[in-house]
Amino acid sequence: MSAGAQLLRVQNFMLSVDGYGTGEGQSLERPFGHADPAVLAAWAGATASWPNRAEPGGTRGLDDYFTRDFANNIGAEIMGRGKFGPQKGPWEDLEWKGWWGDTPPFRTPVFVLTHHPRPSFALSDTTFHFIDAEPVDALRQAKAAADGKDVRLGGGVSTVRAFLDADLVDAMHVAVAPVELGRGGKLWDSPDELLDRFHCERIPSPSGVTHHLFWRR
Amino acid sequence: MSAGAQLLRVQNFMLSVDGYGTGEGQSLERPFGHADPAVLAAWAGATASWPNRAEPGGTRGLDDYFTRDFANNIGAEIMGRGKFGPQKGPWEDLEWKGWWGDTPPFRTPVFVLTHHPRPSFALSDTTFHFIDAEPVDALRQAKAAADGKDVRLGGGVSTVRAFLDADLVDAMHVAVAPVELGRGGKLWDSPDELLDRFHCERIPSPSGVTHHLFWRR
Repeated sequence: MSAGAQLLRVQNFMLSVDGYGTGEGQSLERPFGHADPAVLAAWAGATASWPNRAEPGGTRGLDDYFTRDFANNIGAEIMGRGKFGPQKGPWEDLEWKGWWGDTPPFRTPVFVLTHHPRPSFALSDTTFHFIDAEPVDALRQAKAAADGKDVRLGGGVSTVRAFLDADLVDAMHVAVAPVELGRGGKLWDSPDELLDRFHCERIPSPSGVTHHLFWRR
Repeated sequence: MSAGAQLLRVQNFMLSVDGYGTGEGQSLERPFGHADPAVLAAWAGATASWPNRAEPGGTRGLDDYFTRDFANNIGAEIMGRGKFGPQKGPWEDLEWKGWWGDTPPFRTPVFVLTHHPRPSFALSDTTFHFIDAEPVDALRQAKAAADGKDVRLGGGVSTVRAFLDADLVDAMHVAVAPVELGRGGKLWDSPDELLDRFHCERIPSPSGVTHHLFWRR
């Protein structure tokens, strides 16, 4: 990999200790199914850099570095359709514009992988594109849109798995929370599954999560 | 402190395990005196984000997050004269333009504290200003120049001490390397000295340094 190459990076991906990124039964009311996203995200929510802070303050320790790195040198995101919304199959209408309200936190082009494309639209400084593409082609489009910067792979679990299986992921940060989910969308049985292809550091945070940092061997 | 306030942050300050940031006997040939800066900086030099990498590669683990955060939301730097150069007293000439060659790594306005001001000059996208000011006034000038972003306090040791003594530091990252220096410029006898005013996390890195993260109580 040459210096200055554009990377595909997983940033701040939240996982249970038993390997689940989402619970079972996603719906409009429960984007993470039976899982409580506030528990998985508690480590980030406590930091000063958490974008949705209701009031000033917050910690500036280890977890804050990961939280504030979310957008660092990122020029585009790729996400699965399940991260964009709970609908399945053909779009019944185009009213749904994601979970994030009028100002999504991405602030770059976002490529949503779906077998049911729909027209692109912009919300604040985020533009959503909908593409029916294999991982390698989606990555090519996202890199072209990223203005020389890296591409973030936003999830969910099956999308991260697809890009890992295609060997397209350059670096990956997974924050493993001390909670068991038991069922749902699983990223791994053990992070050791990735050690043949990736270096891995496991950094326990005072907050209770363990940051797993992977990069290509 | 309100959300969006400009902070004064110490970033990637390198220290020996016995509390020294520089050795004894600074000179043109030895900017850190008897200390070997390559040893103090080894943790950062191994990372993918180290700006002076001679070849591609490098680690993307914990140490890389700190290395790549160096410029994150920083709009100006304040440094002591000893960080800018080895000269003492009145400037004998103005040929000296810092240790960093034609492209200093700061890429913002830099305010050099000195009792012997000289004209400002620019090198690439860094502009050096020389001011004879108390910490509180220097910080006011740097914040005004930082375009709404934070100000980095670059050192050396006596400059960091002066701003700590004036209670102007909001957040501080000190990377303590597993090496003893024995003498030189000392930041602390123990990081515990700061616990009355700061939260502190100590995060051991696989590289052998221990990252110390402080933020205001």
